[in-house]
Formats: sequence, structure tokens, C-alpha cells
Amino acid sequence: MPSAYGNPYCGIGLVTQEQQPDFHSALVNTAQAVETALNDLLPVRSNDRLREAMRYASLGQGKRLRPFLVLQSAGLFNQRPEQAMRVAAALECIHCYSLVHDDLPAMDNDDLRRGQPTTHRRFDEATAILAGDGLLTFAFEILGEAATHADPTIRSALVVELARAAGEAGMVGGQMKDIEAEAGGFSSYQAIAEMQRGKTGALFRFACEAGAIMAAADRMPLRQYAEHIGLAFQIADDILDVESDAATLGKATGKDKGRGKATFVDFLGLDGAKQEAARLSDAAVAAVAVYGDKARLLADTARFIVARKK
Amino acid sequence: MPSAYGNPYCGIGLVTQEQQPDFHSALVNTAQAVETALNDLLPVRSNDRLREAMRYASLGQGKRLRPFLVLQSAGLFNQRPEQAMRVAAALECIHCYSLVHDDLPAMDNDDLRRGQPTTHRRFDEATAILAGDGLLTFAFEILGEAATHADPTIRSALVVELARAAGEAGMVGGQMKDIEAEAGGFSSYQAIAEMQRGKTGALFRFACEAGAIMAAADRMPLRQYAEHIGLAFQIADDILDVESDAATLGKATGKDKGRGKATFVDFLGLDGAKQEAARLSDAAVAAVAVYGDKARLLADTARFIVARKK
Repeated sequence: MPSAYGNPYCGIGLVTQEQQPDFHSALVNTAQAVETALNDLLPVRSNDRLREAMRYASLGQGKRLRPFLVLQSAGLFNQRPEQAMRVAAALECIHCYSLVHDDLPAMDNDDLRRGQPTTHRRFDEATAILAGDGLLTFAFEILGEAATHADPTIRSALVVELARAAGEAGMVGGQMKDIEAEAGGFSSYQAIAEMQRGKTGALFRFACEAGAIMAAADRMPLRQYAEHIGLAFQIADDILDVESDAATLGKATGKDKGRGKATFVDFLGLDGAKQEAARLSDAAVAAVAVYGDKARLLADTARFIVARKK
Repeated sequence: MPSAYGNPYCGIGLVTQEQQPDFHSALVNTAQAVETALNDLLPVRSNDRLREAMRYASLGQGKRLRPFLVLQSAGLFNQRPEQAMRVAAALECIHCYSLVHDDLPAMDNDDLRRGQPTTHRRFDEATAILAGDGLLTFAFEILGEAATHADPTIRSALVVELARAAGEAGMVGGQMKDIEAEAGGFSSYQAIAEMQRGKTGALFRFACEAGAIMAAADRMPLRQYAEHIGLAFQIADDILDVESDAATLGKATGKDKGRGKATFVDFLGLDGAKQEAARLSDAAVAAVAVYGDKARLLADTARFIVARKK
């Protein structure tokens, strides 16, 4: 199965002829394939500061968890890997733009991201705003192009679903709720969970459902899986924020507490948060059992999300 | 021809049964129809600061020149008005987001826009960044939805074309060039024209070609028209920046000069700039002569762009 990116399913456990890789090998192999895909989509251009900033913001050391989920989801429905990779790259552009804008001084005012200066620190604020806008816009250009799927109905569906996940009803709305809460604080577990369903959950949902959207198949099992891992991911983040240190995490820790912003740990306690994360992880594994062995790495992902150290 | 927005072609010169309105009536009538469409797409929601900011940024007193061009372009090809209005609204969301982000302190640092406080002054910077992101994302949600066009190939084409016009290769890239020039200045008429082809020209091009994209028709006459009026519009802006005052314009004037940023007027002189704007306006009128009387208001638009007082 030739592809401009090589076969991104090779080494990630979806090509049945090959030896099944373990989860961590599959994740690393996928991250490399995503890096190649983004590098091909946004090649170096000399004397182009905007392109340089867009590359800085999108290439590098991310776990590429969302693209991994897209590829695994697409694998369940035997979608073409080079097409799935374009959907994965589009989603990663959205994720990366959101990090650039969230890190801005007017937002979270972060200097470090993945152990490196944030985009506005490496370049400047104006360039970071524009690089974010450029990546956000580019995501839809990728999805709309014929190379992403032969059926334009599917391409339009991908555009609409990603826009809803990324926009006011999803990620952007969740980030707004998060900022507003810094003033007043979250009043309950439900309030913070609602914020997270938008801020981080919506992109996870798109990632997990992507294969079903591409195949025009039933999305419900993947939606349930996504809601469980999305919430588990954020609870685990809050636990890491308490337990880890900046050297391991590559970004500032304890800052939520420093800002007086309530986290899941505040409402559940540290042990309670760990139990809830484990419960959600188990529920996610159960949700994709319907896909049998093809969902093995999705099940592993649900376990990884609550066990990771950064 | 019933529509959720009424018939936006009524009173704008594209319904042959009615008396042909003059250009200014058509422009005003269209602006009202666009206002209604945006208000319907982004209805009031109580206790929703993000929605409030998105409405603040997109509703109000704009000339709605780009939506007007979309509707006139669509009229040339007998496209359904309620569909053309969705394309127009999507484009206007992009235009409005760009104003919000361009006005930010890290960019042009403007306090006034259309005589009102800019979005970050009325709300705050974080809200303005997110409202811009939300409007940008919403544009693609609108275009991808089936209500915009029955043919998903056309919807995908609209998405890709708007993304290219708005993104790195178009508006965002042009804005980056403009910011970089504040340090070094533009070296020539060609350099400033190249920047404007991206910064303002690309959205004009999408607006003018929209009808042809919707009809899968030849776009070349409209592309030529668009390139002429896009450049003419910007030259006229630079002339206004020299000749007008803040009370008329609703925003600060003379600021380009104050920043030491070269404008078209610097390269062409005031009289030369006026002559060049007039020449471009005439060329635009000639480019759409192929459509006959159906393009009457497009021809009027080309004349208006260089004659306007704000």
C-alpha cells in the first residue's frame, strides 16, 4: 500500500501480516509518521517567518496522541492510511494552533511548552497569533481537498465535524469557560467536567470518531470511548500537575494551584481522582470491545492515558 | 423564492421583476440582509460571554462589501439566494475575525473600529483572541453544511478556496508581510502590492469568484475583476488615510504615516494614487462587461470603491 508518507499503519499494529508491535512502539512509530506528514504539508521555505513559526508550532516532540487515535479509528474501518494521515494532520494542526494561542500572555502566559520556548517567546506575539490562525485555517484546507477522501460528502462531513469540535461549541468554548473560571472558580465536579468536555474532550471525540466518519459508519461506540478517555486524560493531567515536576513534564507544574484554579483533584481528592481516572479507562476499554482485536491499541491507549508520567 | 432571511436579492437589483435599485440602495439593503443572516446564525445566548463577543465582532455597521460581492457574483449564475447568503456570511465571519485579531495590542493595537471600541477593548484580550478563533472556525462549519449547497463537491471547493484565501497563502500571510514591513518598510510599489494581494486581495478574490465556484463556472473574468478592485480598494484606503479625518472614518487616521510605514501614496504620490485607483476601477468594469447588464452593480461597486469617503 504505497503512500507519500510510507505506510503509517506499518509498525502500529494495523497491518495483519506484520508482527504486532506493542503500544509504545506503535505510538512512537505513529509520531514519526505524523512528523513526516506535517513536514511534507508544511515544507521549509526560506525567508518566510510565518512558515517558520507554523513549523515551530506544529513539528517537534508532541506525543501525537490525537493523530494516533485518528489512525487507529480509521484502521477499524479499513480506511486508506494516506487519507487517514491527512485527517490526523489536520486535527494536529488544530491542536497545535490551540496550544500557541492558549500560551499567549493574554491567555495562560506560558513560557515553556514541551521543554521549549513557546511560539510567542521564540518569535513574538503577533507572529504567534498569525501562526495559530494559519494552522487553524490550514486544517480545513487539508480536509476539503480531494486527496483526503474520494467522496466529497465525507470531506464536507469531516470539515463540519472538526469545525464543531474545534469551535465555539467545543474547544474554543471550553477554553473560554476555563478562563472565566479563573476569576470565580469551578463550583463542582460537573462544572469542571463540562468545561473539559469542550476544551480537550471535543478534539478527542473527533479523533476517535474520525474513522467512522470516513467510513460513514456508526460512531456511537467510539463516541463513548472518546468521552471516557477525554475526561480520564484531563483528570490524569491534573494528577500530574500535583505529582510531577517541571523537568519531567517539560512545562511549569503546580500552576493551576498557584492560580487558585480548582482542578479535578480538588473535588475528588488525589486518591479519588486516581480511582475515577481508572474507572473511566476501564469504561473506555469496554466501549471498544465491540471491535474485537482490531481495537487492541485503542484499549492500550485508554490504559496509557491514566498511567503516563507526562 | 422563500428564504429564512427573506430574499436577499430583493432590493439589490437581481430580481428582474422588481424596479432596479441604485447601487447605494442595493448596498444598504444587502447590509441589512447580511445582518439578519449573521444574527440568525449567531443568536443571542444569555450568560455566554464568548457568543456575546462573537456577535459584537460580527454584527454592526460594516459596509458588508464582501458579502455584497458574493451575492452579486452568485446572481450572475442564478444561484439560490439563501445559499449565496450562507457563503457571504461565512466570508464575513472570516473578515470580522481578521479585524479582531489585527486590532490586538500585539498587532495594530487599535482602540476604535467603525467608531466603536475594538473587541479587546470592549471585552478583554483573551476573549477577543477566542472570539476571533471562534468566528474563523465557524466560517468553515457554515460552508461544510448541506444547507450551503446541494452538491458536496461544491461545498468542499468553497471550503478549500476560502481556506486558501484566508490562510498562509492569502490573508494571514499578507498580514504577516505587513507587520514585517513595519520594521524595514516596503521597498517598492510591487512589494506593497504583493502584500495587499494577500492581506485584502485574497478575500476579495474569494468574494468575487464565489458565484462561479457555486456554479462550477469559469472564474477568470471575476478573478480579473477581483484583482483590480482589491488593489483599487487598498489604494483608496491609503488615500483616505491621508485625506480623511477620524470622525468620518470611525478609526484613527494618519497612523500609517505615524508608524513610518510606506503606503501606496508614498510610491505614487497623491495624484498618482488617485489616477492608479481610477485606472484599476475602469479595468474592473471592463472585466465584467462579458456578463452584460447582470453585472451592472458589480461595475457600480468598482466605481464606488474608489469614490467612497470612508
